[in-house]
Amino acid sequence: MGGPAVRVALDAMGGDHAPAAVVEGALRARAKGVEVVLVGDPGAVAAALNDAGAPDALPVVAASEVVDMGEDAAFALRTKRDASIRVAAELVASGEAAALVSAGSTGGTLTAALLALGRVTGVRRPAVGALIPSMRGSRVVLVDAGGSADAQPEALVGYARMGAAYAEVLGSVAPTIGLLNVGVEAGKGNTLAKAAHRLLRELPGFMGNVEPDGVLYGAVDVTVTDGFTGNVFLKTAEAVSGGYGDRAAIVLGVAGEVLVAHGAARAEEVAEAVRMAAEAAAAGLSGKVAAELIRGTG
Amino acid sequence: MGGPAVRVALDAMGGDHAPAAVVEGALRARAKGVEVVLVGDPGAVAAALNDAGAPDALPVVAASEVVDMGEDAAFALRTKRDASIRVAAELVASGEAAALVSAGSTGGTLTAALLALGRVTGVRRPAVGALIPSMRGSRVVLVDAGGSADAQPEALVGYARMGAAYAEVLGSVAPTIGLLNVGVEAGKGNTLAKAAHRLLRELPGFMGNVEPDGVLYGAVDVTVTDGFTGNVFLKTAEAVSGGYGDRAAIVLGVAGEVLVAHGAARAEEVAEAVRMAAEAAAAGLSGKVAAELIRGTG
Repeated sequence: MGGPAVRVALDAMGGDHAPAAVVEGALRARAKGVEVVLVGDPGAVAAALNDAGAPDALPVVAASEVVDMGEDAAFALRTKRDASIRVAAELVASGEAAALVSAGSTGGTLTAALLALGRVTGVRRPAVGALIPSMRGSRVVLVDAGGSADAQPEALVGYARMGAAYAEVLGSVAPTIGLLNVGVEAGKGNTLAKAAHRLLRELPGFMGNVEPDGVLYGAVDVTVTDGFTGNVFLKTAEAVSGGYGDRAAIVLGVAGEVLVAHGAARAEEVAEAVRMAAEAAAAGLSGKVAAELIRGTG
Repeated sequence: MGGPAVRVALDAMGGDHAPAAVVEGALRARAKGVEVVLVGDPGAVAAALNDAGAPDALPVVAASEVVDMGEDAAFALRTKRDASIRVAAELVASGEAAALVSAGSTGGTLTAALLALGRVTGVRRPAVGALIPSMRGSRVVLVDAGGSADAQPEALVGYARMGAAYAEVLGSVAPTIGLLNVGVEAGKGNTLAKAAHRLLRELPGFMGNVEPDGVLYGAVDVTVTDGFTGNVFLKTAEAVSGGYGDRAAIVLGVAGEVLVAHGAARAEEVAEAVRMAAEAAAAGLSGKVAAELIRGTG
């Protein structure tokens, strides 16, 4: 450890097609020069490596438990101290890996990352930021894309600040922010959207409500919403187009590089997520987002 | 009045392109044999008829006020007693028209319909039912597609019952019901979805959670969700595909035929909504849905 190579900790047990598709994805990422360490049940991971015709090709760190998709992630992680996602997050905390990738429960990944890595200064609630390719060629940062199903209006202000910081790191100058809603008029939406709109008005760059077609057009650089609505938006766009869900999303607000891959990810999507994680680590993405957050409020 | 022809009351002032596109749509529906009465500002409607080269081609009922898209519909309708949507709904209540169509504020249409026509017995909260064409060729009833932005878990049980009754009228035998969610496992979702899931389990035909791809595949006959999430789902699918939003949606749970057209509807979509309304009236759709609701609980 400690060398210059960026090593990615991959939760071998997370995702609908784990461990086979995850292990196969790790091998593909490795073939492109990314260091990967697999975390999970040693027997199951060894069998998957064997099946892929590559026994002992990758380092494995043992973890005896798994957070299932149907479990309450926060509760499961309190009781399952040897869960693969938790052990993988601790590899990043200890410096043995530079980034974490999981295709398992998003809530579980967020909780494990929070427990092992902690929050960025000034962040109350981490969230998932997804990049949506827009019709005019830009990338729209969607926050929260599925981290926390419930959110208070105040949380959406934090999402907007983290999303704007991420957009700035990606190259946006003075990013514009929109609130995902069912109409562009200020009074539209449910109780959460109306209250969030009132709070967001105080934020530089806030342009008001944006409807789904506006997000997909690229009308704003950052779109904020609660994690339930954001995830429904993302999954609907993906189901209709067949494309949006291929790429991994980043966890914003934790002190380290953490990416969530699609639960249904196949080997190629896992490999792509691992490459993205290595890039994020090499670029020091989470540190830059933290710096932008401090600059934005300073 | 009182003849055998089905007459549709059309809110000439509702929608992004009103009154021009609405009046043009009315003329197209009229050309296909549907009787239409326009409701709105007489000067504006006459000008639109003139612009369309058809002065005096359609009957006009005067209404001096309009519910704007940015207004709180329930509040606006209490103060604007001569709002076009309210006058149009009263034409249905008095029997001067057999159905109501508006491309204006969905909340306004729902409130006006409720005030003028009342609820179907056993219905606590009316909702909007949209038909989603599925990949396997079926039509999925989505309730609530945008009637009420906020909903309590109990309301979703009512939506499921109304949606199932509508599906039965459309020909489904023992329709299956799903709860729109971000995962298929029972514990998934926000507070509303989790609580609704527990209540819906008691309902015949309930299959559990369904993700956006499942809805679009046609995994269930009826999908229930709150009006905010339903509208985001519909608008996202429509923005990506360019198609789902063309058709009007029906208001379920009010004692009369009421259809909401897309706010951005152009003439052809308005004409199609008017044709759908005439069909619904000829078939006595709302009465059949009411009968199915009574049968379902009897």
